[in-house]
Amino acid sequence: MVVKVYGPAYASPKRVLLCLVEKEIDFETVPVDLIAGENLTPDYLQLQPFGSLPVIQDGDYTLFESRAIIRYYAEKYKTQGTDLLGKTLEDQGLVNQWLEVEAHNYHPPLLNLVLHIMFSPHFGIVRNEQVINESEEKLVKVLDVYEDRLSKSKYLAGDFFSLADLSHIPFTSYLVGPVGKEYMIKERKHVSAWWDDISSRPSWLKVLEICK
Amino acid sequence: MVVKVYGPAYASPKRVLLCLVEKEIDFETVPVDLIAGENLTPDYLQLQPFGSLPVIQDGDYTLFESRAIIRYYAEKYKTQGTDLLGKTLEDQGLVNQWLEVEAHNYHPPLLNLVLHIMFSPHFGIVRNEQVINESEEKLVKVLDVYEDRLSKSKYLAGDFFSLADLSHIPFTSYLVGPVGKEYMIKERKHVSAWWDDISSRPSWLKVLEICK
Repeated sequence: MVVKVYGPAYASPKRVLLCLVEKEIDFETVPVDLIAGENLTPDYLQLQPFGSLPVIQDGDYTLFESRAIIRYYAEKYKTQGTDLLGKTLEDQGLVNQWLEVEAHNYHPPLLNLVLHIMFSPHFGIVRNEQVINESEEKLVKVLDVYEDRLSKSKYLAGDFFSLADLSHIPFTSYLVGPVGKEYMIKERKHVSAWWDDISSRPSWLKVLEICK
Repeated sequence: MVVKVYGPAYASPKRVLLCLVEKEIDFETVPVDLIAGENLTPDYLQLQPFGSLPVIQDGDYTLFESRAIIRYYAEKYKTQGTDLLGKTLEDQGLVNQWLEVEAHNYHPPLLNLVLHIMFSPHFGIVRNEQVINESEEKLVKVLDVYEDRLSKSKYLAGDFFSLADLSHIPFTSYLVGPVGKEYMIKERKHVSAWWDDISSRPSWLKVLEICK
């Protein structure tokens, strides 16, 4: 059975691709063009009622929300490929904690930067300098916490690469690339070393190759 | 060992209390007053570097982010109290999916309503009617998806009460109470029946009693 992943060209689906590559799970991709509104067709809304990416189909099992999908495969294939959850329930708790931090502290200001700098004027977004400045200020505070954390452990949840680190990769590659704010990573010694490490993993290079 | 829960009087920590009651786990609470800034003291920031609630301490294990904490206890005490994860990994995938929907689709507009209607002018929030109207419009769309989903299964992840339902309770009790928008729930037949069901669970009544 090959896992079908909808919408590979955007950052959230790339979380899923990264996970599938790390777990050595075969998959195929189904392009969904957000700018053409392919995520709002009745067929797509049957799969994902909010019109968001990604969705996976695995036989007759359908699942959406990237962080739910990566948790599912990390658990289902725990002993295959890279272990992304840690050895104990306590490790897994910390993986989930930092995955929530990514979702609630790191992602929202970064998404604003991506939308207002990279995607305006698509999706009706008018570039707003105040939103950009406020989002950068918020992200600086989050990165300062990361710098402290990563001075004490090699990865966010401990001394092992996990879903928490993986989940940061696709949008952070926008930050250091087309968003043009690489200095936010580079001026923090431990964040910079962490980013160099996780963004040079073969899984990410493979995902970039698939999506180019 | 008794679990120590910081910050019980607010909605996010109540997710944790609800889970601990459902799982029949003993706990004690440590009040943290956000309005007095007790979440920004050096000691508190050692526990939770972003100054958010809740945090738990369980022996020498510290964990923050309410949805990470409830996942940890639901898994650690899988066979004690109410099973909040479902029987299979596929059930658990759907629980996580709807928990992510709660976090990313349902919670942000509801939090805006709570902040601008209930908490202004605390925390420097100036009541903004445009934010209130836009947030209500977004929440209506989410509730329409819930109405469809709950017409097909009794609870969000299937025919069993789970973390996904539980996570909605504390903030939705603000929506139908002090926010003054009970009609958003009541005018949707299946959402209304679901809310009556989950909000009358003994666990929630006990949490309200603890926090009154």
